[in-house]
Amino acid sequence: MLPMYSTASDPTDGPLTIEELQLATRNRGMPLEALRYDLTPTGLHYLLIHFDIPALDADTFRLAIGGAVESPLVLTLDDVRAEPRRSLPVTMECAGNGRARLSPRPVSQPWLNEAIGTAEWTGTSLWPLLERAGLTPDVVEVVFTGADRGFQGDLEQDYARSLTVDEVRRPEVMLADVMNGQPLQPQHGWPLRLIVPGWYGMTSVKWLRSIVAVTEPFEGYQQTPAYHYASNADDPGEPVTRIKPRALMLPPGIPDFFSRHRIVDQERVDLLGRAWSGRGSIDRVEVGVDGVWSEAILGPALGDFGWRRWSFAWDASKGEHVLSSRATDSTGTVQPTEQPWNHQGVGNNMAQIVPVTVR
Amino acid sequence: MLPMYSTASDPTDGPLTIEELQLATRNRGMPLEALRYDLTPTGLHYLLIHFDIPALDADTFRLAIGGAVESPLVLTLDDVRAEPRRSLPVTMECAGNGRARLSPRPVSQPWLNEAIGTAEWTGTSLWPLLERAGLTPDVVEVVFTGADRGFQGDLEQDYARSLTVDEVRRPEVMLADVMNGQPLQPQHGWPLRLIVPGWYGMTSVKWLRSIVAVTEPFEGYQQTPAYHYASNADDPGEPVTRIKPRALMLPPGIPDFFSRHRIVDQERVDLLGRAWSGRGSIDRVEVGVDGVWSEAILGPALGDFGWRRWSFAWDASKGEHVLSSRATDSTGTVQPTEQPWNHQGVGNNMAQIVPVTVR
Repeated sequence: MLPMYSTASDPTDGPLTIEELQLATRNRGMPLEALRYDLTPTGLHYLLIHFDIPALDADTFRLAIGGAVESPLVLTLDDVRAEPRRSLPVTMECAGNGRARLSPRPVSQPWLNEAIGTAEWTGTSLWPLLERAGLTPDVVEVVFTGADRGFQGDLEQDYARSLTVDEVRRPEVMLADVMNGQPLQPQHGWPLRLIVPGWYGMTSVKWLRSIVAVTEPFEGYQQTPAYHYASNADDPGEPVTRIKPRALMLPPGIPDFFSRHRIVDQERVDLLGRAWSGRGSIDRVEVGVDGVWSEAILGPALGDFGWRRWSFAWDASKGEHVLSSRATDSTGTVQPTEQPWNHQGVGNNMAQIVPVTVR
Repeated sequence: MLPMYSTASDPTDGPLTIEELQLATRNRGMPLEALRYDLTPTGLHYLLIHFDIPALDADTFRLAIGGAVESPLVLTLDDVRAEPRRSLPVTMECAGNGRARLSPRPVSQPWLNEAIGTAEWTGTSLWPLLERAGLTPDVVEVVFTGADRGFQGDLEQDYARSLTVDEVRRPEVMLADVMNGQPLQPQHGWPLRLIVPGWYGMTSVKWLRSIVAVTEPFEGYQQTPAYHYASNADDPGEPVTRIKPRALMLPPGIPDFFSRHRIVDQERVDLLGRAWSGRGSIDRVEVGVDGVWSEAILGPALGDFGWRRWSFAWDASKGEHVLSSRATDSTGTVQPTEQPWNHQGVGNNMAQIVPVTVR
């Protein structure tokens, strides 16, 4: 029998725990062969759900906009849908992507590479609603609270995150009720969620039920201490915000069921992948073959906040090879080939490694 | 760093391996709070994909029906859609559900409890198409082959399974192109899959591309040696067929993020769950509270092949409790409270255990 339940601990080089396995079987990664789709089919988009998927009723649903505002609002779902509509493809990634590859390993949802997805979200821009409510001049942040409730860090809480006023002014920050042309499925935040393009996924609060303007920085658990680049348990660290650059390739050839090791039987292999960054556009993707880097050919990006397609024609020779890919964004940031370790295991964008046997 | 890749091994009491984690992050369980839905939202249904999700084109898709038949058929997707349509809710479960709780633990996809889902499948009955092709009198089985290809057990293979002629005659065995009212998503077998109500999920071949009538029993890898109740590596064992009875409850209260431990703050707790069996109807569900079993109230079943709703009003006292549930089907089979161990870790339908703190 696997070891029994325990609370979260410090990072470890010990074996995977049953708690990590429980999280891995209920949260969901995107199988990397889905990199072939411009838009990730809804059922293949990654999912990270802190507590439970709540049971919400669209008829009784209300979104409250309040706090330090002149005219608090209470909106039905139909009210939100009556606002001007917009649609936007957005690549989203969990801040914990890559955590399970770290050593020592921070114990939480044990992602490898697959906590990603790109969907077209439809809804309305947030800022006009906040303007209607009228933020008072002393407002510094806006707090977004979901209907999912539970314990984390020994604190009972509704899931909540904040953004500065500058961030919520961005026209692409939106309230979405439609994903890939269909009403949100429950696990993606039905009936309404926040979408914050460019930021890691923890910011795009699902099952959104209140928006509260505040005059002091928000210090709820999911804002502080969680989601910080910290060097140890006592280091407050820096907040996790925008997505670091990353490239991923569709693993070529066919897999072994258990090891997922790839077998390729062509001499000329057309490698395909996607790259994205929440900090700028993707300017360059390189493909590594046995440690030698070459330029990939860049395809179009899916708008300002969606991933960019890339390809690379590999003249493969028989034998064992290690493929890799890495992205550079318009800020000049290159994906590292060493793992950037931190205490919570966030933002590990080390370049992907794909061992391949060519036969 | 977690241990590096290896091939599948004998059952072990050792730690979870990175190969098992890789499988857990790409395959998908149904979070148990989704037991509240009669039909599982498509993106929450469990998924077990042996190889890769193949890239198929509906326009060039063809289903070949051949082998020992008088008139081989080659059908387009439109041909299949022109046949008489039917819809059927079906509860599906992976044969490996519960595997990761076994000791020693067979190493494969490490399911705990969540490899389940119920969808409404729409398509056409298979048997009229086989009658049109005309099975020759010496046919004993029909082999279903998907478009997903890879290695397992050191054998390169297209995923393939067979059924006896008696089984394929059943009117509810169908070819489905629609799930929950929408075209199949790629991961569920688009454009066409087999649905075999009552059987574990390995039988409902996804990405179906050929149906071949054979005059000798099929012995492909997924038929033999895989999916057998075997006592050790040398025991051929008995084939896995229909789903054993199982009940699951929606975990009450709210969770701790990491341990998933439940905190309940009501004195009267309305427990809700579902129960199913592929071998008969559900006649009884019992709820265990600290080892004392009581009758649950049975609700309606979702047709002949969908799960049955149940409920139980629990007068909870403050403190620590262990909840459980178990089903009995119309064959008189009761879910065991001890784990039924076998070498491949299939059919572990031990009664669920849910530790709860009432405050």
